[in-house]
Amino acid sequence: MKKLRFTKMHGISNDYVYISTFDQPEEDWEQLAIRLSDRRTGIGGDGIILVCPSDVADAKMRIFNADGSEGKMCGNGIRCVGKFVYDKGLVPAEKTTITIDTLSGIKTLELTVKDGKVQSARVDMEAAILRPADIPVRYDGDRMIDAPLEVDGRIWNVTAVSMGNPHCVTFVDDVDSLDLEKIGPHFENHPIFPERVNTEFVKVIDDHTLQMRVWERGSGETWACGTGACATAVAACLNGYCKKGDDITVHLRGGDLVIRYTDDTVIMTGPASTVFEGTVEI
Amino acid sequence: MKKLRFTKMHGISNDYVYISTFDQPEEDWEQLAIRLSDRRTGIGGDGIILVCPSDVADAKMRIFNADGSEGKMCGNGIRCVGKFVYDKGLVPAEKTTITIDTLSGIKTLELTVKDGKVQSARVDMEAAILRPADIPVRYDGDRMIDAPLEVDGRIWNVTAVSMGNPHCVTFVDDVDSLDLEKIGPHFENHPIFPERVNTEFVKVIDDHTLQMRVWERGSGETWACGTGACATAVAACLNGYCKKGDDITVHLRGGDLVIRYTDDTVIMTGPASTVFEGTVEI
Repeated sequence: MKKLRFTKMHGISNDYVYISTFDQPEEDWEQLAIRLSDRRTGIGGDGIILVCPSDVADAKMRIFNADGSEGKMCGNGIRCVGKFVYDKGLVPAEKTTITIDTLSGIKTLELTVKDGKVQSARVDMEAAILRPADIPVRYDGDRMIDAPLEVDGRIWNVTAVSMGNPHCVTFVDDVDSLDLEKIGPHFENHPIFPERVNTEFVKVIDDHTLQMRVWERGSGETWACGTGACATAVAACLNGYCKKGDDITVHLRGGDLVIRYTDDTVIMTGPASTVFEGTVEI
Repeated sequence: MKKLRFTKMHGISNDYVYISTFDQPEEDWEQLAIRLSDRRTGIGGDGIILVCPSDVADAKMRIFNADGSEGKMCGNGIRCVGKFVYDKGLVPAEKTTITIDTLSGIKTLELTVKDGKVQSARVDMEAAILRPADIPVRYDGDRMIDAPLEVDGRIWNVTAVSMGNPHCVTFVDDVDSLDLEKIGPHFENHPIFPERVNTEFVKVIDDHTLQMRVWERGSGETWACGTGACATAVAACLNGYCKKGDDITVHLRGGDLVIRYTDDTVIMTGPASTVFEGTVEI
């Protein structure tokens, strides 16, 4: 029996099992992701994230989902990778700007440190994509903003944004009362979204504050979606509810993220939490 | 920040966070049970189980459910307590019969050991209670066995058994196709069960093998219910499908238990598994 050391971490409740390959050998990560993600007979999590040595950045992250498939990037996950790298001394204590290599390219993180531990991280999520063909959404026009769309027999005004994955944002008066289990699948599988879509239902609290719930394609309602919070803030600016360049707080069910939208990029800031350290026999 | 050491264990997928107070101080366990049981932001489990020193047994177990309430006994949990006590050397290696003090009295466990680790444990679950008033069920007669009961517009033949908690067992041709989410609540809240009831839906595979699904009062369908497996084997004997004194294998969704029913007692044998060791800051 080999022993594998790990750290359980979460970013606004999006939780993974973090494993360092700086000092541990390669394993069959697909199989381990399936086994270790089980919330009853395994460690439990949305998947596993490897923190690996890199020749081009301070560390490399690899994500394996709970079904064993490898993912590209995760906004909530990369903040925890930043905390893992810093808190465990894989970079010098004075280095609070670090780089992480991902399958979506090298990302820069600015870490907020208190008493030697990372509390939160700021991540450059890159520019929002608004061209319909690139999102993708079947829509005649330069951008799909506040456009009426019939879903499940009702007209919703929607804004389409890609943050590397497709999002459909709709502003409503009340998000708590929505029956997402019923309406979510109709958005997800609407024929104008050829690759399906993640849908954000958003209430504007004020010009710096939004409340959202999210229906993720393939997952259903989740408590936290980093790219969804980015798309929501972008859509709020495009619809005139918030201003470009401002810090916009997005309340998700799992916690808060702060998003800043500029023409060049979208910046996401949020907490990263360590829950416990463990050792598992594999 | 204090550090608390724990072991995550499960018995046929009924999982708890096990904490020794042999070498760790008392804490606010109600609050910790709520916090640590959270499957995303905590360690994750059906609750926490304390393994404590005892003057009257080899150890004492205390169960705190995920809502912070203290429970009395748990058939799947006590097998893991046996493994915890033995594997961690809290009893001498030659001692494979141990006693555990619980809020339901002192229980005796016989441990099956391989390579120095407990694989499974046999627990005396005490006598089944069949007197309707003691179960409790509102029924005229000495015992409620194979009695027709109308639930949700259909007649089911049911057998009522208490294993310290009330069970209603019904034998059906196929358990996989049942819509427990729909019918379970109608059994649970049927007016003849004044304290509600746990319901087992059981298929007889042969005279030594049963397949069951369980709807637990207050929890809905669960993957594993130790007292439910006991009640199921008792009911199978009372209905003539199996024989008293025989080892009866019960297939639950989470795994298998072996039950032996005699007039004096019900013996349950099943596996106990360690998933990982951890340390959490509290």
